[in-house]
Amino acid sequence: MTGKFITFEGIDGSGKSTQARLLADGLKERGYDVVLTREPGGSPGADEIRRLVLEGDPEKWSAETELLLFTAARRDHLERLIEPAIADGKIVVCDRFADSTRMYQGLSRGDLRAKVDALHELMIGREPDLTLLIDMDPDQGLSRAKGRNGHEERFEDFGPGLQRKMRQGFLALADEYNDRFRIIDGSGSVDDVAAKVAAVVFETLR
Amino acid sequence: MTGKFITFEGIDGSGKSTQARLLADGLKERGYDVVLTREPGGSPGADEIRRLVLEGDPEKWSAETELLLFTAARRDHLERLIEPAIADGKIVVCDRFADSTRMYQGLSRGDLRAKVDALHELMIGREPDLTLLIDMDPDQGLSRAKGRNGHEERFEDFGPGLQRKMRQGFLALADEYNDRFRIIDGSGSVDDVAAKVAAVVFETLR
Repeated sequence: MTGKFITFEGIDGSGKSTQARLLADGLKERGYDVVLTREPGGSPGADEIRRLVLEGDPEKWSAETELLLFTAARRDHLERLIEPAIADGKIVVCDRFADSTRMYQGLSRGDLRAKVDALHELMIGREPDLTLLIDMDPDQGLSRAKGRNGHEERFEDFGPGLQRKMRQGFLALADEYNDRFRIIDGSGSVDDVAAKVAAVVFETLR
Repeated sequence: MTGKFITFEGIDGSGKSTQARLLADGLKERGYDVVLTREPGGSPGADEIRRLVLEGDPEKWSAETELLLFTAARRDHLERLIEPAIADGKIVVCDRFADSTRMYQGLSRGDLRAKVDALHELMIGREPDLTLLIDMDPDQGLSRAKGRNGHEERFEDFGPGLQRKMRQGFLALADEYNDRFRIIDGSGSVDDVAAKVAAVVFETLR
């Protein structure tokens, strides 16, 4: 069988990383060959580029340069890990992918969205077979994110107003790409959400 | 007055870096405000990206990822140094620019040229006002390059056959962009070549 590419998206604290891991575990238990990965980064080269972007002064790179660097990281991740795994018939589960770039860049610089799309089409091309948006009330999500240790990504240093805009941004993308997006209510217990995720994924795999 | 953007291109050992410096000095002596720079790199951020690409295993990055990284470096160099200087009315003299990317990528992966052009149009846009191609017999150029200390760039680790192809690549670009390219015979003495360069540049500035 040909592989599948499943991505998770959602605001910080939505539980998407936990859900990605639980889905990968559940698929493995059922005998699927699974690769669990995440962006930004995901391959040794992409991780190096990620460090270059995210460490140091946040004003260091312009939005355009940052977009090029993240696209370079995604290209490396895609060709070194994602595409070979899909070609091998594996299920690739990825925590964040191009939709995060579309949402974040669209939020900070709406005029960049056309460039984001053109660059994606030119240098990436690949879209997920299925994207699970773990949808969450931002105030609930933010308290979860703050409860975790450390803030690894600059993305997380945002207040609740911005989180609400991010949620709206993801919901707009789910509408724009409604052929592959499925919205999962992330407000229940971890197990409840995992059961909803599993139901959607196994329906897709059948 | 509005600034000017002058680039030098040519095979390794053609003397283009020396000529770029001599031109910058000559312009300064005549009272022009000049910025001398070079690629890959040219700004602190671009230099960091350059190190990421050129240090370590040459097989580390695919041609596409390398292209994205060099475009990110060029974007940083352009917006942090080149564009502000031109806007200030300065003359920017740059040792290598996008034509080097077109030539090198076209040589190693001809099928990438369309991507190189699309990426340039999307994320860079700027073309030089004048490009001086220091044209040189490859065997002569190679012996000069080997006479220098060290090999800073992977580009230089090529034999004379490849240098001949590079020369042809640059000549083809000079033909393709004949509105801004001027071919300078680089086989004479340094002073002779500098005089030819100066004649072309002062004609353009008048």
